[in-house]
Amino acid sequence: MASHRIPPSPSVFPPKPQGGASRPPLSLRPWSTRSASTTLQCHKMYVPGFGEASPEAKAAKHLHDFFTYVAVRIVIAQLESYNEEAYADMMKFMENHSVDDGDKFCADLMRESSNHKALALRILEVRSAYCKTDFEWDNLQRLSQKMVEDRNTKVMRDYLSETTMKSEN
Amino acid sequence: MASHRIPPSPSVFPPKPQGGASRPPLSLRPWSTRSASTTLQCHKMYVPGFGEASPEAKAAKHLHDFFTYVAVRIVIAQLESYNEEAYADMMKFMENHSVDDGDKFCADLMRESSNHKALALRILEVRSAYCKTDFEWDNLQRLSQKMVEDRNTKVMRDYLSETTMKSEN
Repeated sequence: MASHRIPPSPSVFPPKPQGGASRPPLSLRPWSTRSASTTLQCHKMYVPGFGEASPEAKAAKHLHDFFTYVAVRIVIAQLESYNEEAYADMMKFMENHSVDDGDKFCADLMRESSNHKALALRILEVRSAYCKTDFEWDNLQRLSQKMVEDRNTKVMRDYLSETTMKSEN
Repeated sequence: MASHRIPPSPSVFPPKPQGGASRPPLSLRPWSTRSASTTLQCHKMYVPGFGEASPEAKAAKHLHDFFTYVAVRIVIAQLESYNEEAYADMMKFMENHSVDDGDKFCADLMRESSNHKALALRILEVRSAYCKTDFEWDNLQRLSQKMVEDRNTKVMRDYLSETTMKSEN
């Protein structure tokens, strides 16, 4: 699947002339090439906009909220089988509280009543166990990389078929 | 960090009597224990609510949009250094188009003009390279697992200090 590996268009990325210093030619891969005079050599692309955090830390935060959402789902399914009363309590609580911010959800649940506190502790326990033991990290990597390739192909294929149809009409 | 490993409260998880069949005792870990009569043995927790997709596939979709966001950031930073005109085009386009749905963003960008199309292809290329080469998957796993532990401790510590203060007052 190399159909989308286009060389950088000169009209979009013309090298900017710099005072005196000769610049290395723009490579096909958009790595952030540092000046040869600096000792620190990094072959990764420069990702701005994350402040002191890394993209990995930002992604971990997203996953953290996702794990809380999964843990809530797991606990609700368990309650549905084992304890209808606690299940009803949980569903009622969820009507007025969003799981989007997982930590706030757990903190609020913990303060609702002593029964709710036990549920909150259960969710904390489950999200820890799920993240450590059940979640398939290798699978996540494989699926993510496949998804990027598949979606890239789709975006380009849709565009091509659209423009081909237009030109035929 | 075992302070939050509470045994399941009998009031929250009372075993439901089942007709005739003797049930295994509830284990401390909330695994989805299947009936002993089924041949399929799964030691993972049952996660409902994802239809035919897995939680890993759902998380991969989140990451996919995140990678597009990162790729847009990378390309913008490159344009800022190399091509002010394209940078201005890109920033203007972003005023009216959200990056939240990464594929739609790329598809729209591709249809804006031929210059924008080159930028869109660049973003597709960068998100593929970033996901495959630059993104630190091991680091993501380490940070996520640490975050769950840290946040669990924080949620419980905040609750304890709050209730202790209340009882002291």
